[in-house]
Order: sequence, then structure tokens, then C-alpha cells
Amino acid sequence: MCPPALIPFKPVNPKTRLSAILNQEEREQLARAMLEDVKAAVKDAMCSPVLICSELFESEDVQVTVTDANLNETLNSLLPQNVGPTMIIMADLPLANAESIRRVTSTKMDLAIVPGRGGGTNVIFMKNPEKFHVDYYGTSFLKHMKIANEAGLSVEVIDSFRLHTDIDEPEDLVELLIHGSGKSRACLEGLGFTLAVNEGRVGVVRNR
Amino acid sequence: MCPPALIPFKPVNPKTRLSAILNQEEREQLARAMLEDVKAAVKDAMCSPVLICSELFESEDVQVTVTDANLNETLNSLLPQNVGPTMIIMADLPLANAESIRRVTSTKMDLAIVPGRGGGTNVIFMKNPEKFHVDYYGTSFLKHMKIANEAGLSVEVIDSFRLHTDIDEPEDLVELLIHGSGKSRACLEGLGFTLAVNEGRVGVVRNR
Repeated sequence: MCPPALIPFKPVNPKTRLSAILNQEEREQLARAMLEDVKAAVKDAMCSPVLICSELFESEDVQVTVTDANLNETLNSLLPQNVGPTMIIMADLPLANAESIRRVTSTKMDLAIVPGRGGGTNVIFMKNPEKFHVDYYGTSFLKHMKIANEAGLSVEVIDSFRLHTDIDEPEDLVELLIHGSGKSRACLEGLGFTLAVNEGRVGVVRNR
Repeated sequence: MCPPALIPFKPVNPKTRLSAILNQEEREQLARAMLEDVKAAVKDAMCSPVLICSELFESEDVQVTVTDANLNETLNSLLPQNVGPTMIIMADLPLANAESIRRVTSTKMDLAIVPGRGGGTNVIFMKNPEKFHVDYYGTSFLKHMKIANEAGLSVEVIDSFRLHTDIDEPEDLVELLIHGSGKSRACLEGLGFTLAVNEGRVGVVRNR
């Protein structure tokens, strides 16, 4: 079994909530590094990454679908075309590893969902994608639980901080510098970021 | 096996980083509710809660140790006295449940550690507590990994967002309102808090 893992990706001007500490080029560089880490974890867990991109983007090793429709429309037109288990995983999860993803794909339920920080949905794994549809943005985790319930689908909520930790805000970079081991952490360190402890609280500082 | 679970608890003026939205009495009420949820989860996972309190505090159902020494000194004087597996778990983990705690206590390693947000340590489980010592505050997760390494103890890092999510800042309350099911969530709802979606981002609002 090698289920597709659909990865929505925004190559141009991504992660704007990091604008206070990273310029556009740096944010694009970090976003690509995080995508590489997610792709590596997905492959290690025996899934096949497929990028769903908002703009033209070239990848040497994986299939790319470019679309200018919004994310929900795009995914909801793709899901009925997928036969068999299908995953959707966000591109900003640099702590993802094969072990955490295998916990998702080995669910005994119809669906496995990993909530993101602040009510988002970081990963959805569907045994029968044609029976489900997505509704991202806002408290999408609660919306997805409701959609599953209304469709009579059983759900396992996977309790993983590695897949729960999406990188959106400057303070999220602390998690990457502590728990990351891949290209994203190297990217961040290459940009001059290190951990800083200030009055008992941990943040990041940039040295150049 | 019913290992002790040491729970440090500050009953007076706790959780000061929530002061912008909760007064002292309300913070004390929420802290006690979170403690109740942690105690319930710990008991469901067949551990015996023991409170380590910074001030006088009465509990009808569990042993209380009151100390005016700092947390590290207190714990490091207690650990060598414990024979057999011992846990230290923070009191501000209202998403803790029996399943996540059993993942900790069923480790095959010498130690299991659950990191908190921002480099803290939320749970430590020690098979041989006399061989370990704690060093909380700052990036305690990294310090604990180093102490374990220097003592030649094997460590499993438990990948759980339920035990990773400590409630410190106003935005953390979102997690409690989404994923909580115990007394802390009821307390927060009783204080008038509900979820609010604003420009795609999820926060909390207080209605009274």
C-alpha cells in the first residue's frame, strides 16, 4: 500500500505571519525546506507525495498539480477521483516523521485526523476519500469532525505534537530549533536563528 | 503497579500570564480545575497522585507535601526517596487523559519525557528515580535530555499533543475549548469564554 499524500503548497509569499522576522525570499526558502521535510517523512512512511500548488512550481521528484481554485474546491474535486486510502497533509509540519505518520495511516477507523494548533487540521487520512469532503480555514478540526459524523464515518484523533505543530508564528520557530532535525532546522540556523532564554521563557534570536 | 505521580501545584496567584483576561480568583479557580483533570487522568492510568505545593493546600483525596523550597530542590530531595517507577507531571495539562499517560508509563526505556511548548518539560517518567535529577525552567527539555544522556539512561520522547499542551497564555485557551472535556473546560465556559473566529484565525472571547 502506497497511498497518495496530497500536500497543499504555496511557493510564492508564504507564511506571512513570519514577516516581522523573515523577508519574502527567506520565507519562501523556509517553506521549501519544510516541504522537503514533510515529503521525506511521507515517503519514509510509504506514502506518495503529490503537491497541490497555488502557483507554478517545479519538483524533480514528485507529481505537481497547479490550480488557481481555492484549497477546498481543489481538494474536493480531487478526493472523489482517488480510489483507496488518501492523505492530506500540510506542508508546514517540519517535525513530521515516519513514525508519527504511520500512526495516522495505521488507524483502524474510517478516518484519522490530526488537529493543528488553534483549531486547524494538519493531517486527514481517509480510507474512502469519496465519502468525505474538506472544509479548511477557521476551526476546521471541528468542522471535519462534524462532516465525518454526518457521513457516518468513524474517526480517530491522533495525539501527536509532531504533527500538531504547524509553523506559523515567530514563537513556533522555538519548536523547530528544539525538536527539528531536517532541512527546515538547518535553513533556520543558516539564517542565523538560535534559541534564547529570557526571564525563564524561551524564544528565538537572530544573530545576523 | 501504581507509581506515584508527583504534581507540582501553585494554589495562590498561579498562571500570571493569563492576568490580562482572568483575575487572581479566576486564575486560582482554573488552576484547581486543571489540577482536578490531571489528577483524574493520572488515576485512570493507574498512578497515585501526590501534590507538591508551594503553599498550604488541602486535598480530600490525595497526599499533599507543602514546601517553601524551590521546585528543583524539592523534587531532587524527593526522587532518591522513591523506590521504583515515579512520574512528575505538571498541573496545567488539562488535555491529559489516561491513554496519553499510559503511553508514558508503558515505555520500554529508562525514562519517558514529554516536552512542553517552548522547550519546557511536562512529564517525566523514571524507572529508577534515584539515578536522575531534574532541572526545570528555561529549556528544561534539552537539559533533561542531557542529564539522562550523562547518566547513561535511555529516553523515549513521547509524541503527544495532549501532554504537550500546557495552558500558559490566552491563546492556549483555544486548545482547551476545542479538545478539553473535563472540569477545566467547564470552568472556562462558566467564566463566559467561547471560541471566536476572526479573519481565519481562532481565538477566545469572553461574553461576561
